[in-house]
Amino acid sequence: MVYAAIAAGGAGLRMGTELPKQFLELNGKPILIYTLERFVGLTDKVFLGIAKEQKALTEELLKDYGLSEKVVITPGGINRMETIYNILKDIEAKCSVTDNDIVITHDAVRPFVSNRVIEENIEKCRQFGAAGTFVKTVDTVCISESGEYVSAVPDRNMLYNVQTPQTVNFKLLKKALCKHTDDFEKYTDLCGLLCTEEIKAAMVQGDYSNIKITTPSDLKFAEKFVEEN
Amino acid sequence: MVYAAIAAGGAGLRMGTELPKQFLELNGKPILIYTLERFVGLTDKVFLGIAKEQKALTEELLKDYGLSEKVVITPGGINRMETIYNILKDIEAKCSVTDNDIVITHDAVRPFVSNRVIEENIEKCRQFGAAGTFVKTVDTVCISESGEYVSAVPDRNMLYNVQTPQTVNFKLLKKALCKHTDDFEKYTDLCGLLCTEEIKAAMVQGDYSNIKITTPSDLKFAEKFVEEN
Repeated sequence: MVYAAIAAGGAGLRMGTELPKQFLELNGKPILIYTLERFVGLTDKVFLGIAKEQKALTEELLKDYGLSEKVVITPGGINRMETIYNILKDIEAKCSVTDNDIVITHDAVRPFVSNRVIEENIEKCRQFGAAGTFVKTVDTVCISESGEYVSAVPDRNMLYNVQTPQTVNFKLLKKALCKHTDDFEKYTDLCGLLCTEEIKAAMVQGDYSNIKITTPSDLKFAEKFVEEN
Repeated sequence: MVYAAIAAGGAGLRMGTELPKQFLELNGKPILIYTLERFVGLTDKVFLGIAKEQKALTEELLKDYGLSEKVVITPGGINRMETIYNILKDIEAKCSVTDNDIVITHDAVRPFVSNRVIEENIEKCRQFGAAGTFVKTVDTVCISESGEYVSAVPDRNMLYNVQTPQTVNFKLLKKALCKHTDDFEKYTDLCGLLCTEEIKAAMVQGDYSNIKITTPSDLKFAEKFVEEN
């Protein structure tokens, strides 16, 4: 079985709106719905981790878009890792997990992920145990240990921006997360946690359009993207 | 003396326009003019490195905006480092350079650099010999040596995106560039070259609005920025 774990944690403060950003609409449809629709059909069951306060609104939206039977709502955690951990526990409680089962994790506010990227994540995860989505870094990035002087400029050809999906064998991921319940806040995504656990994530090439909508200028880009596609 | 070296090399291919991107207009004024105006007044002399093919158009624009007396045009090189190298040679030919002179280098297509950033660059360069402009990286970045597996996820708190200005003592920079005339194409900006030469650049905090306009979505952001400021 392939489980999708969609994390919709953010309160959307950077957007300057009252509604969390996953509920903002693109061409009349909430961002969250775009994202869920990408995973329904390509996975066996979709779990959505979302704050309790937004449960009622989310249930209503799922109903409106005919997704109630296809998406399970799980209470979100206080950070992204805890949200994913909660989803894994919910999957265990509701389904019989086997050794070959896979979890494909994704940000609710990355609505433009392509079928190719989802399919390659699942394929590479089956083959290697873990996979993630990456694009080459466009900017020049440097390292400074002190914050006062530049320490090093890594070769740009070896630098990648981390996107989602990030996809891991269910039991492998559960075990890794269980070891870090005390320091979940240290990890912004699975990539760093997998590295700490020396689980090598195979790389799937992402798309530059697979953006995370976090600022008003991202939203402008997203509106244009929806218009043109 | 403080010399500004503005590099306007790019052919603007990513923009999908015929005119190089530094000539595109924001609210009726070319991007290049915004940039030059930022440095005239805060520096003693401004040198602009630009392709021969664009010399006539540039001269006309400088005249239109009353900048002819304030900006010297230098033929650009085949890459950014060569353009800066050409400017340094031109400065030497036209001015009497002393040991304390400073060069503040900048991208022609970063029109929104603030006075504060320019002033702090000059100040820190006087104090430490070299300075650059940096903002904290917003994205999660990972390193992959093979391009197939993730090798490491550096601590995001130590990662910075490199902006310009980058500011160096004239003679120090000339010496460093002279050693690399055969591998200029290896360096996208001075930061990497200074690291190779073990010249420590002091860090000036940049602004997220100090963007490099290279894609149509950058241009959209820029239009909005000009409208609002």
